[in-house]
Amino acid sequence: MIVTTDDPNKPEDYDHDEPQNWRPGACPFCYGNESSTPSEIIAIRNNGTAANTPGWQVRVVPNKFPALQIEGDLERRPLGMYDMTSGIGAHEIVIESPYHHKDLSDLLDSEVANILHMYFQRALDLEKDRRFKYVMIFKNNGHGAGASLEHPHTQIIALPMVPKIVKEEIRGAKNYFEYRERCIFCDIIRQEVEDKERIVMENRNFMAFCPFVSRFPFEIWIMPKKHASYFCQTPVEQIPDLAVMLKGIIARVKKVFGNTAYNFIIHTSPINSDGQAMDSYHWHLEFMPKLTRVAGFEWGTGFYLVPTPPELAAKFLREA
Amino acid sequence: MIVTTDDPNKPEDYDHDEPQNWRPGACPFCYGNESSTPSEIIAIRNNGTAANTPGWQVRVVPNKFPALQIEGDLERRPLGMYDMTSGIGAHEIVIESPYHHKDLSDLLDSEVANILHMYFQRALDLEKDRRFKYVMIFKNNGHGAGASLEHPHTQIIALPMVPKIVKEEIRGAKNYFEYRERCIFCDIIRQEVEDKERIVMENRNFMAFCPFVSRFPFEIWIMPKKHASYFCQTPVEQIPDLAVMLKGIIARVKKVFGNTAYNFIIHTSPINSDGQAMDSYHWHLEFMPKLTRVAGFEWGTGFYLVPTPPELAAKFLREA
Repeated sequence: MIVTTDDPNKPEDYDHDEPQNWRPGACPFCYGNESSTPSEIIAIRNNGTAANTPGWQVRVVPNKFPALQIEGDLERRPLGMYDMTSGIGAHEIVIESPYHHKDLSDLLDSEVANILHMYFQRALDLEKDRRFKYVMIFKNNGHGAGASLEHPHTQIIALPMVPKIVKEEIRGAKNYFEYRERCIFCDIIRQEVEDKERIVMENRNFMAFCPFVSRFPFEIWIMPKKHASYFCQTPVEQIPDLAVMLKGIIARVKKVFGNTAYNFIIHTSPINSDGQAMDSYHWHLEFMPKLTRVAGFEWGTGFYLVPTPPELAAKFLREA
Repeated sequence: MIVTTDDPNKPEDYDHDEPQNWRPGACPFCYGNESSTPSEIIAIRNNGTAANTPGWQVRVVPNKFPALQIEGDLERRPLGMYDMTSGIGAHEIVIESPYHHKDLSDLLDSEVANILHMYFQRALDLEKDRRFKYVMIFKNNGHGAGASLEHPHTQIIALPMVPKIVKEEIRGAKNYFEYRERCIFCDIIRQEVEDKERIVMENRNFMAFCPFVSRFPFEIWIMPKKHASYFCQTPVEQIPDLAVMLKGIIARVKKVFGNTAYNFIIHTSPINSDGQAMDSYHWHLEFMPKLTRVAGFEWGTGFYLVPTPPELAAKFLREA
């Protein structure tokens, strides 16, 4: 739990009505509005253009309203029977392109590859800060998926601890590895190749499929075919394949559902964990179109109702 | 994960656009439309009226589209490297009143007490089926909270296993109990009474407060002040107090936010667990107004961003 205490919402600050159209007004992520964001961390730019001016293709800026702050030490203090921890961490925004109305699926393959390059570069840079134990890259696209700005962007968060649900996933994979001496994700790939029916796309280096254990209808995972623990260590020559696949699944989902909201999250190994080998963990991207609402049943049980079996979802996506 | 295989959704079955107004047409839960639901399980009725006809105040029916089915045995089978379990269980709907446009907060105290009586009665009855290990009572109110019908109703699910997140909560409470020899929830009540600032309402038998560890802004918990493990064993003389409190918090939330969507879930002890004492677990109701959207950050980390601290939320609700 991370609580905003600096500038807390009041009831009237919430948009609790059914979602409206995006509010009009200048977009801080658009070309020409570079001064509306905090000063840029890095950008892919035309030669000779200055930081925080036009001339960029991909631009990374600190989040103006970060969930976590980079300054200060990690500190825990008791509050009666409760514990408080300061919300240390980094929170960056990758503005994917100058175009307000172009999502990843509308960009050129090479433009998507540039965005992926930027993910890697920022993750590798954040890793140098030894306080950080986990870097999470994720995207909220569309109001329904929790995006507060329409202009396509990805978020990168560096955390001083490994989140509990990541820990659990890693522990599960480790238990499987100890028992079978094989990576569970490599086994999943073998099983999916054999079953075929849940595969959405495949190329030389990556596979996209609707996982057997989907939590959401039309959930899609992208996974490197060859065992790899760290997203940001993806070999440069594989990036074009990954770009084609990421672009491809978003295009397919939009073909099936129109301009639907979605989230994706990159699941990767913890960093700065003192050289612990990660033979048992295999990075992957989890893509979730926002088609259903999580309700009391899911919150109460942790079971997710999936009204479309993954085999059928994959079929629709393959044929799109 | 529970997958619908009998009548799976196709892409066009999803309402993936931003939520619309409720579709017009006859409501199957309204007075006079009793034949639109499966045959009633039980109802509070005027003397002399027949089942599945008008004359009722509270009516319980099987869910027409159950997440789980009561018939059959619990069966597990392998599917390659995966496991499948048949989705056994019961899924019932409590139609709270004949009034399509009256939520709990608009009913008389005695009418809300009748609904609570019905919850208890159904939970106690489902408990008799030894296959069931957990009964979960929850409500989705409003489209944004996942309700598919507008007419106010509560859902009751009986499950053949204790869900993982319930197990974890119970294990946490047990660890605390073993360490301190006190119930963690009783300690929370003591702490809240001392701090005062997170309390929303209090009466003789119950307390409503915004928990220190809220996952959602304006989250409210209702808890019996005296240690009690099982919701459905609430003493009859406490029911009016509980009715006033449940009605009261919904009225306050609606005063602050207007007609906002919400979920509530009753957290109680597992059943048919062969007489395991539950000194360490304390039932409570978790109420969550639907003000924010769960996005990539929450899905990926399990951390929830709460933009309003619980102390401030409680203040707004107290003053409503």
